[in-house]
Parts: sequence; C-alpha cells; structure tokens
Amino acid sequence: MADPLDILEQTIRARRTASPDSSYVAKLTHRGRAKIAQKLGEEATETVIAAIQDDREELTKEAADLVFHLLVLLADAGLGLDDVRAELARREGVSGIEEKASRPS
Amino acid sequence: MADPLDILEQTIRARRTASPDSSYVAKLTHRGRAKIAQKLGEEATETVIAAIQDDREELTKEAADLVFHLLVLLADAGLGLDDVRAELARREGVSGIEEKASRPS
Amino acid sequence: MADPLDILEQTIRARRTASPDSSYVAKLTHRGRAKIAQKLGEEATETVIAAIQDDREELTKEAADLVFHLLVLLADAGLGLDDVRAELARREGVSGIEEKASRPS
Amino acid sequence: MADPLDILEQTIRARRTASPDSSYVAKLTHRGRAKIAQKLGEEATETVIAAIQDDREELTKEAADLVFHLLVLLADAGLGLDDVRAELARREGVSGIEEKASRPS
Repeated sequence: MADPLDILEQTIRARRTASPDSSYVAKLTHRGRAKIAQKLGEEATETVIAAIQDDREELTKEAADLVFHLLVLLADAGLGLDDVRAELARREGVSGIEEKASRPS
Repeated sequence: MADPLDILEQTIRARRTASPDSSYVAKLTHRGRAKIAQKLGEEATETVIAAIQDDREELTKEAADLVFHLLVLLADAGLGLDDVRAELARREGVSGIEEKASRPS
Repeated sequence: MADPLDILEQTIRARRTASPDSSYVAKLTHRGRAKIAQKLGEEATETVIAAIQDDREELTKEAADLVFHLLVLLADAGLGLDDVRAELARREGVSGIEEKASRPS
Repeated sequence: MADPLDILEQTIRARRTASPDSSYVAKLTHRGRAKIAQKLGEEATETVIAAIQDDREELTKEAADLVFHLLVLLADAGLGLDDVRAELARREGVSGIEEKASRPS
C-alpha cells in the first residue's frame, strides 16, 4: 500500500499548476515562496503550542499540517520527500542520527 | 527497503531512554517537552530562512532537521509518523487535501 | 510627548475588555492565550522573512505588528512594557547587555 | 530618565562594529542578517512557550530577549525603534490600532 506521505506529495505536485480558485495548493503556490514559508512557520508555532498544551489530538493535526506545508515548500523549490529521506539516510549511514548533534548550530 | 523515516523513528524511540551523555535524542528528551518544542521552532525558522534564500542544499538539510525534531516531539507525546500518516490519509479519503483549506484558521 | 509604545499599551489594556465585535484586541484576547501566542509566532516569522528579503518598509510594518502582539500577550499575562524595560535595565545595570550572552541557551 | 529601550538601542548601535570577540552584538552582527533573524525566531518560540506555560518570570525574560534581538535585527537593516514608533503612531493617528485588523493577512 502506498505511503500516504507519497500520495500527498504526488497530489501536491499535480495541483501546483491547477487554477488558484480550485485548489489550496495552487492558491498558496501562486502567492509565492515567502507565503508558503510563512504558512510553514505558522504551522510550526501551532505544533509547538499543541505540544506544550499536551493536546495529542491537536498535536497530530498540527503535525499533519506542518508536514503538508513542508511538502508544498519543498515542491516549490524543486525538492521532495525523497531528498529529505536521502539526507536522513546519509546521516544514518555515515555516523548515525547523532551526526545532527555535531552540526554547527 | 525500509523507509528512512521509519528507521529514524525507530532509532529515536530506542534512544529516548538511553543515557543523556551518549545520545542527542536522550539528552533532548531528558530536557523535557518544552525544550524539544523549542528546537522544533528553531528548525522551522531555519527552514523558512533557507527557503527564502533559495538555498536548496540548506533547505534539504533544514527540512531533515525539522522532520527529525518533529519525530522526537511526537515520540515524546506517545505519537508517531503513522498517526500523521493516518491523519493525512483521513483528509485524503474524506474530502481530499483541500480539506485543509476549510479548517478554521 | 508620550511614547507611542506606551500609548499603544494603554489602548490595548483599555480594549481588552471591550466587545469582541468592536475591537481586534478584544476579539484576540477573547480567543485566549494560545491564540495570542500563535499570532506572535506568525508575526515573528513574517519579520524574519522581511529581514531576509531586505524589505525595509515591510520589516518596519512587521516589527510594529510583532511589538503590537507582544504587548497584547504581555497584557494577557498581567505584564507590560515596563516589566520588559525593568528586565533590560537590570541586565544593563548588573553586567551590561552582554549578560544575555551568558544566559543558558 | 532615559527609556531603557533607547539606551539598549544606543548600546547595540555602538557595539555592532566592535570586535566579535568582545561583544555578543558584534559577534551576532558579524554572522550576518540570516543568523540575527534566526535568533529572533528562536526567541519568539521561547516567548510563545513561556506564555503557554503561564510562567510570568520566564515570559518577562523571553520578551526582553525578543525585544533585544528585534533591535539588533532592525539596526542591521538601518532601522530603529523610532521607525517602529512612527509606524505605530501612524496607525493610531489614521485609524486607530484596529487598522491592524484590516490589513491583508
């Protein structure tokens, strides 16, 4: 069965060039990179708030919103979930996920 | 082949209870929910900046950092990537991803 | 001449208890602490974006929006600009603004 | 008596060109606009968290950190607190602070 994350990404890619009137993805994409990035920031703040409030249902929804907007942003830059997967796999392969800790902050 | 996202999640879950001295995940988890959420917010800001600067390599790295810390945060709340997948699949199934657009902002 | 920051703060305090229909401050306050905090996060993201885009006019507006929502948030917690001023003066007095650098991150 | 906000701003402006080794402001400024903006985003997230946790002491400190980094960011763009004051006064003068509510989101 296909990963819902990949299905979502395909849907996003297909709708980017649709009419802004017919699709949220098309509308947001049409407004430009800065507006997509702004939405990502908003969803991150909402994820933080849900996490601090320990509201698991809300946290799940906000995490989904955050991932959704991250995929829209990546698509706008010609990137996708597989690039993120490759980066994570690379970190695992080279030195484990702890590699993150050694990156310059 | 296993999805690097799931491998990462399993690694995170395994390391949450490791010694804070030996693992970034354990150290961050030990510092508590607020600190994990704070890191998520930081990575989101860095993702926004890389996107605005149109730095694709940096954007890929920051997106990976963002996903990494989202998984650490979800794990801390007893949630996981499959909960996010289920939420995204539910939206697809019921009314498509455009459902997002109709959510109260 | 009175500081516009203080005038704004007085206006915010006066409007907090007004009808949510008649005032943005009242409406936002009525929606609760989390919603005010969310708005602060949004304005911070917009400030970051304007700064990276080096759009001085937009940066000025976003900085004003950020300060506005910070004052609404502080008021909601029974705090105000004078508390921020006192904290900043304390840091100056004790060890200069570099004290910030020595705070645990 | 001088406003601590203005004293802080003067200090920031004076230290921007100091040796990065001797001053946090100089060091941060030396790292560039994106790094200053990133710090602003971090402080905003910490302010949000303190507000949600209803920790008034921490909220005061984080608000001071947020204002501090906003002033560093504004200075880096050749702007200052007086530009923010003028923008806020303009909104008050023209149509009251509710003007904010009518801005396109």
